[in-house]
Amino acid sequence: MPVVVQKFGGTSVGDADRIRAVADHIARTRREGIDVVAVVSAMGKTTDDLIRLADSVSSIQPPREYDMLVSTGERISMSLLCMALAELGVDAASFTGSQVGIITDNDHSRAKILEVKADRLREALAAGRVPVVAGFQGVSIDREITTLGRGGSDATAVALAAVLGADACEIYTDVTGVFTADPRVVPAAHRINRISFEEMLEIAATGGRVLMLRAVEFARNHNVPLHVRSSFTWEPGTWVVEEDADMEEAVVTAVTHDTSEAKVTVSALPDHPGVAAKLFRAQADRSINIDMIVQNASANGTTDISFTVPKTDLGVSVETARATAEELGAKGVTSDSDVARVSLIGVGMKSHPGIAATMFETLAREEINIDMISTSTIRTSCIVRTADVERAVRSLHAAFELG
Amino acid sequence: MPVVVQKFGGTSVGDADRIRAVADHIARTRREGIDVVAVVSAMGKTTDDLIRLADSVSSIQPPREYDMLVSTGERISMSLLCMALAELGVDAASFTGSQVGIITDNDHSRAKILEVKADRLREALAAGRVPVVAGFQGVSIDREITTLGRGGSDATAVALAAVLGADACEIYTDVTGVFTADPRVVPAAHRINRISFEEMLEIAATGGRVLMLRAVEFARNHNVPLHVRSSFTWEPGTWVVEEDADMEEAVVTAVTHDTSEAKVTVSALPDHPGVAAKLFRAQADRSINIDMIVQNASANGTTDISFTVPKTDLGVSVETARATAEELGAKGVTSDSDVARVSLIGVGMKSHPGIAATMFETLAREEINIDMISTSTIRTSCIVRTADVERAVRSLHAAFELG
Repeated sequence: MPVVVQKFGGTSVGDADRIRAVADHIARTRREGIDVVAVVSAMGKTTDDLIRLADSVSSIQPPREYDMLVSTGERISMSLLCMALAELGVDAASFTGSQVGIITDNDHSRAKILEVKADRLREALAAGRVPVVAGFQGVSIDREITTLGRGGSDATAVALAAVLGADACEIYTDVTGVFTADPRVVPAAHRINRISFEEMLEIAATGGRVLMLRAVEFARNHNVPLHVRSSFTWEPGTWVVEEDADMEEAVVTAVTHDTSEAKVTVSALPDHPGVAAKLFRAQADRSINIDMIVQNASANGTTDISFTVPKTDLGVSVETARATAEELGAKGVTSDSDVARVSLIGVGMKSHPGIAATMFETLAREEINIDMISTSTIRTSCIVRTADVERAVRSLHAAFELG
Repeated sequence: MPVVVQKFGGTSVGDADRIRAVADHIARTRREGIDVVAVVSAMGKTTDDLIRLADSVSSIQPPREYDMLVSTGERISMSLLCMALAELGVDAASFTGSQVGIITDNDHSRAKILEVKADRLREALAAGRVPVVAGFQGVSIDREITTLGRGGSDATAVALAAVLGADACEIYTDVTGVFTADPRVVPAAHRINRISFEEMLEIAATGGRVLMLRAVEFARNHNVPLHVRSSFTWEPGTWVVEEDADMEEAVVTAVTHDTSEAKVTVSALPDHPGVAAKLFRAQADRSINIDMIVQNASANGTTDISFTVPKTDLGVSVETARATAEELGAKGVTSDSDVARVSLIGVGMKSHPGIAATMFETLAREEINIDMISTSTIRTSCIVRTADVERAVRSLHAAFELG
């Protein structure tokens, strides 16, 4: 019998009605002769409420206790979903991350999955039951409750699909799939039917919010086909799969944008080996997540390096860069929060060298100034003014005929 | 170092402020050189909210899932309390019922504690930590999460105190102790300083709401001194301890009342051996909790049997009694919901035979009619009209000079 893992996010199990609708969908899938493993997030804003409660109790939150606290939300939704399934006559059993054998490292609140012991899952499936698993959590090698950080429930679903050799991992959410651009910015954006793991990785990394990077990486590494779809309309959504011959026809798949980063520039750095290494080691030591890095051509034996960091890390990043700049004898450090990134993504770029040029021409025609450029084999990103980014997305979406 | 178990009920950890106050009290106790094990209930009405949520999702609630759901409340409060302790510089660690080794039978939602493996508790204490334990829950011999039913957190606290050989088990609640009568009915009622386990059992069984019967039974069986006190005033409360010579001076310790039961009478039963057994076996088979049983003197070879049952079980009880009555050839079954019980409790009754007489005289003087009488060695109970019960309590409280 085919097996699918169905993962339901917070809005999909947001209230009693939504939970009953999810149970109904699981029952329907089973009637089609498909075995289902369900993975659930916490209901709606439950986890945010728990974090707020913790903040009101104490400014010191030991990681072990924090994980114990925020892992309760999924336990509530999983037991409620089992009850809703029971009412439909579907035999179900809930499993916490610990019960299902999701073994993680000891890094509380952003633990990584080391191993999945799916014995109890397999037993439940063999007994004709629907296992309902709490997403976002595991048990550490020290036997403590851990949580997997943002996007953790998707990671749980993909890990279970991988270990079970499931036919697909369905990610149910409040949108109908992955779009060619953010539909709030580009009304003509449409849902993509099939997309490669590599493109999805780039979309997730450059502002697409539907799937988190780590879940896509995990799915690609284990070749688990993902199906991103809506738990409100239940219509087919976007398949994220291995790249195949059909896909090459689409040169550009999507335009993404992201306004969560700021730019830091270190100017007139002495241009000799080891300088960039010093600069970015210092940033890494402060746990700052660097994204784009651009080094301009050297002049007079010095060079400028610009990079982007999450706006929330900007203060620490600039402070750290200033110390490094002083140490290295650079001229100074400037920063700019008023920037945004627009990116073109598509596997076809590999074999179509004119894409970047068309992108720059399109932005020039709109009189949008480009501040930084960075490319990968299947992506081209430009940093522009925040005020220009939505216009940039719309014009690129039109120029590459994605509508 | 002396060890106390401190149990905090739902109102004691009702919000962020209350949780910080509890942390402060634990820190203060530690500064006095006393090791503390904390046991917490769910915050305020959390458990009731979860039950309401489950009712809105499904009418079928598999017991395993129900227990998974309602056990989350204590997990939230225990991790928050550990955070509050961390802020005060007190090293604490939370433990679920499962983590602390509270092994129960498989009877979900009213499980009985079979064994407590307190290794992790002892390790935490030895390491100078405050263990904070989720009340109300355990793990079954089948490795499933179970809950202990009403009063379960008190049972957890007493069980841990027993296994640790703790010096005391402090039950913190929203009243300052056990009173000579319900202060809402008798303004002159005062807090009892010391009371025996036996008296406390009778008080719990006849309407006193501060402690549940099972926790008191467990404390008596393991000789764990209980200290019932307020987490709002933190003043010393009522000690519940083994009976000793001092106590015998108080003839009557408390007057209790209870309006939650109804009376059922089976009249003109044939008076031969095995009749009562048949009647009450049938009731037991329907899981009806019979309380008082009174059999009147036989006349004409027949006898009347009256008993009290919780009002919520009255319908089933009468239906069952009717079937038995027909089978046995009894005359009929009547019931009365408009009854209440008033009880006098005191270890001194054993050696003071006049107490019952004084009780009846007092009620007669108030023109309160007595419907049923039942006694134990340290208790005398009368069933009266509901409308008369508060007057009965007040007059008895005055007559025995409890004010």
